Amino acid sequence: MLDNFRLHLEKFIPISDKDFEEIVPFFKIKTVHKKENLQTEGAICRLHFFVLEGCLRKFFINDKGVEQTTEFAIENWWITDNIAYEHGLPTCFYIQAVEKSQILIIDRENQEQLLEQFPKMERYFRFIYQRAYAASQMRIKYLYDFTKEEFYEQLCKKQPEFVQRIPQYLIASFLGFSPEYLSEIRKKKRS
Amino acid sequence: MLDNFRLHLEKFIPISDKDFEEIVPFFKIKTVHKKENLQTEGAICRLHFFVLEGCLRKFFINDKGVEQTTEFAIENWWITDNIAYEHGLPTCFYIQAVEKSQILIIDRENQEQLLEQFPKMERYFRFIYQRAYAASQMRIKYLYDFTKEEFYEQLCKKQPEFVQRIPQYLIASFLGFSPEYLSEIRKKKRS
Repeated sequence: MLDNFRLHLEKFIPISDKDFEEIVPFFKIKTVHKKENLQTEGAICRLHFFVLEGCLRKFFINDKGVEQTTEFAIENWWITDNIAYEHGLPTCFYIQAVEKSQILIIDRENQEQLLEQFPKMERYFRFIYQRAYAASQMRIKYLYDFTKEEFYEQLCKKQPEFVQRIPQYLIASFLGFSPEYLSEIRKKKRS
Repeated sequence: MLDNFRLHLEKFIPISDKDFEEIVPFFKIKTVHKKENLQTEGAICRLHFFVLEGCLRKFFINDKGVEQTTEFAIENWWITDNIAYEHGLPTCFYIQAVEKSQILIIDRENQEQLLEQFPKMERYFRFIYQRAYAASQMRIKYLYDFTKEEFYEQLCKKQPEFVQRIPQYLIASFLGFSPEYLSEIRKKKRS
């Protein structure tokens, strides 16, 4: 499983065997069960999660008591509440496993030490944040530009495997639909 | 003006006089006039802009022909279409000066060379993208959680100087209001 992490790092920076041996102990490996919470609203956000296998999601509970999913992380993605993580603040988000998952966990102090000891990891994380930022800028454009139905169409077209893999009620929560409404749209699409 | 850029860099990394002398030539300094376009839809996105003084905005033109502002950059902020910039693709955004502004411009090749020659700039840009990503994650939460009116309230409360500074029709374009509707809300607020 860790071989995949090494391959992922090597897409961005060269990693020797010795480097990798020294980098791995900065992380904890954990298996999380489906629906297990890794972070809950109100807790200080100290952890950054990397998905080796499986899928996590981030959500908040809105005024009506409904779970609103804002983000998914599948293989080779990082996820946390970045503002709360950087400043050691309480988070307003939950992070939960969508499927049984294998993840790496690092805390802020260890991430800082890792960056100090391996300055090339600055380059790695620069790429990670740059791409995540670019993706969220595009997401913001879609939120302005597309109706929820168009956003769903786009998702089906661009990431069909993702739409197949994620339970429909979570896709609905991500799109801000009720599950019933999503089901109606899917019926319409098929007919 | 460049002293402010140095002070800004020094918030993230130590910069010697010699470093700074060598870093500055990677950038062009430019004065842009109010409403001058720095980037237009359809053009290959090659440039990354840093605001020394003034304000830029990013917008796209939607199906109805209306300008939809998705982002502002004031002093010490970077702005570009990050996906298009990283991959050298045509952009779907305009970038325009809101006020007469003084900016630094770097292109992708120069930014890559800067990072190679000054690896500590990896740390600087890691911070820049990390914070920009964190801010855009919070923005996405607001887009899900707040009505447009609540988002405006929030903006007035958290960034009153910004709301004062930016022309109201652009605040309206950012919020997805018509200028008339924003004017109504402001009247209601005052009464």
